[in-house]
Amino acid sequence: MYYIGIDLGGTNIAAGIVDDEGKIVKKASVKTGRTRKPDEIVEDMCRLVLDLMKDFGLTEKDIYSIGIGSPGSHDRENGIILYNNNLNFKNVNIKEAFQKYINVPIYLENDANCAAIAESVAGAAKGYEHSVTITIGTGIGGGVVINNKLFTGTNGQGGELGHTVIIIGGEDCTCGRKGCWEAYSAATALIRDTRRAAEKNPDSKIHELCGGNLDNIDAKTAFDAARLGDKTGIEIIDNYISIFAEALANMINIFQPDVIVIGGGVSKEGDNLLIPLREKMRGKTYGNEGLPTTHIVVAQMGNDAGIVGAAFIPKLN
Amino acid sequence: MYYIGIDLGGTNIAAGIVDDEGKIVKKASVKTGRTRKPDEIVEDMCRLVLDLMKDFGLTEKDIYSIGIGSPGSHDRENGIILYNNNLNFKNVNIKEAFQKYINVPIYLENDANCAAIAESVAGAAKGYEHSVTITIGTGIGGGVVINNKLFTGTNGQGGELGHTVIIIGGEDCTCGRKGCWEAYSAATALIRDTRRAAEKNPDSKIHELCGGNLDNIDAKTAFDAARLGDKTGIEIIDNYISIFAEALANMINIFQPDVIVIGGGVSKEGDNLLIPLREKMRGKTYGNEGLPTTHIVVAQMGNDAGIVGAAFIPKLN
Repeated sequence: MYYIGIDLGGTNIAAGIVDDEGKIVKKASVKTGRTRKPDEIVEDMCRLVLDLMKDFGLTEKDIYSIGIGSPGSHDRENGIILYNNNLNFKNVNIKEAFQKYINVPIYLENDANCAAIAESVAGAAKGYEHSVTITIGTGIGGGVVINNKLFTGTNGQGGELGHTVIIIGGEDCTCGRKGCWEAYSAATALIRDTRRAAEKNPDSKIHELCGGNLDNIDAKTAFDAARLGDKTGIEIIDNYISIFAEALANMINIFQPDVIVIGGGVSKEGDNLLIPLREKMRGKTYGNEGLPTTHIVVAQMGNDAGIVGAAFIPKLN
Repeated sequence: MYYIGIDLGGTNIAAGIVDDEGKIVKKASVKTGRTRKPDEIVEDMCRLVLDLMKDFGLTEKDIYSIGIGSPGSHDRENGIILYNNNLNFKNVNIKEAFQKYINVPIYLENDANCAAIAESVAGAAKGYEHSVTITIGTGIGGGVVINNKLFTGTNGQGGELGHTVIIIGGEDCTCGRKGCWEAYSAATALIRDTRRAAEKNPDSKIHELCGGNLDNIDAKTAFDAARLGDKTGIEIIDNYISIFAEALANMINIFQPDVIVIGGGVSKEGDNLLIPLREKMRGKTYGNEGLPTTHIVVAQMGNDAGIVGAAFIPKLN
């Protein structure tokens, strides 16, 4: 039996056939065309799946389920995307649309939760019962796995870990609050802070790194500057990791998971991020001698997380 | 069948026989004598239980279990209090001690978790699958119930909700961090803020309310001053509730529980606390039209929470 996962993004629709071990045996993608009508986008998703199945020689009987991951809110039970701000989807019945073409169970889940599922079943949190996966991108996505089940609260909206305030009255957040973790640790926040620091420090190497145009700053720029020994770069990263450490310590005091997995672009820094992060977290978390403590690791599933996580939604249901 | 609950506090050991509905049918207490040796304290606990059983005419066969709630950390499986800073208990094997006298299952749990169990089984969260109980006292205790089970993370130390930083670099917390929720919303924090404001405002009614001696300020003083229309009192309470609202909104974005129960002394303010709190939380939590939202209520179990919660540990195990 195979699982099909679809990563419905604002730019691309990526779909894959996934085996029981979490290996993508066949994948394909098409442009989303985000301004199109929901009907057209959903039809493309169906077509993509049917083509993949045909190419790989599978019929309906070989497919356990189809899972779709997308940012936003879902009515999981009825297979409806309630809201997706990238696509202007509102109350789009995916299940109904798919079941015109193929009669297998359809699952929907938030993209941050799909990342958590992928890491839990096949990635950095494999073998652990309790994990928290943090995905750092435009925002901060959180996915919580408790007792090998995805935790989403009573209304399916839980685990919005990026929208917990860590500095009351702090930086503006996209959610309308001030001082959310997302407003300090998302890639966009790091870019904002890099730009601000560069503006204040005309001698910083950041200016060279972005070719003299601060619009070219990305989430890697400050890390690159720090690697070159640039004082401003070092300060930005030190502050970034200090705040990250406070937020992660909060998550440990709340969840005491076996492992926290950090994914998204910034996680590619690996030990450059993890070593100072673990150091700065020391003494901030509850726990007792002899009791297990939370491992802090980077994600392993990379770009496949979206497809594999969507495919494996039923595994953590 | 009956359940026995013991609330092991720094001042009193309170024990009770609890029926299946959460009603305490018989209770008694003795002074803890916190400076005594653990052995002596544990022996008093056993004697208290045996006396209660004798007085109520119960034998071992009538008792489903004995549960003990105390602040600190526990090895639940082996019935050992690992650490209790009120009593200087370290690695005290309660189970072994009790089983010299009575052969029934022994359960141990953190006191904040016992409060959550009591509210979940017999109090303000009864009938809800997902609840978060916040107990406001010297500190802020948190207890999380997910799918009608107490959630404590992989090492039993989870749910330390009071030790999540909401203002990085803020007020000193007893845990060693700065800016924890506890450092703003515990009764001790409210007393500190009331005192500070009184010192700055010699005309405030707070001075009369505490008989001219600021050492007499308690967690009710600022609420009382606000009720009298005192500007300083109103400001203290407004600030207190504003911060509380941010922290509770964080908890909703994380857990999306059916209900958040607020217990402890401050909760006796009832609607004086709840109405502005709900108002200040508006717009701060994730959720979608048509989906259930979290109820915010005050605790119902009062002083019985410790005994009933300890008695009912096995119900949420």
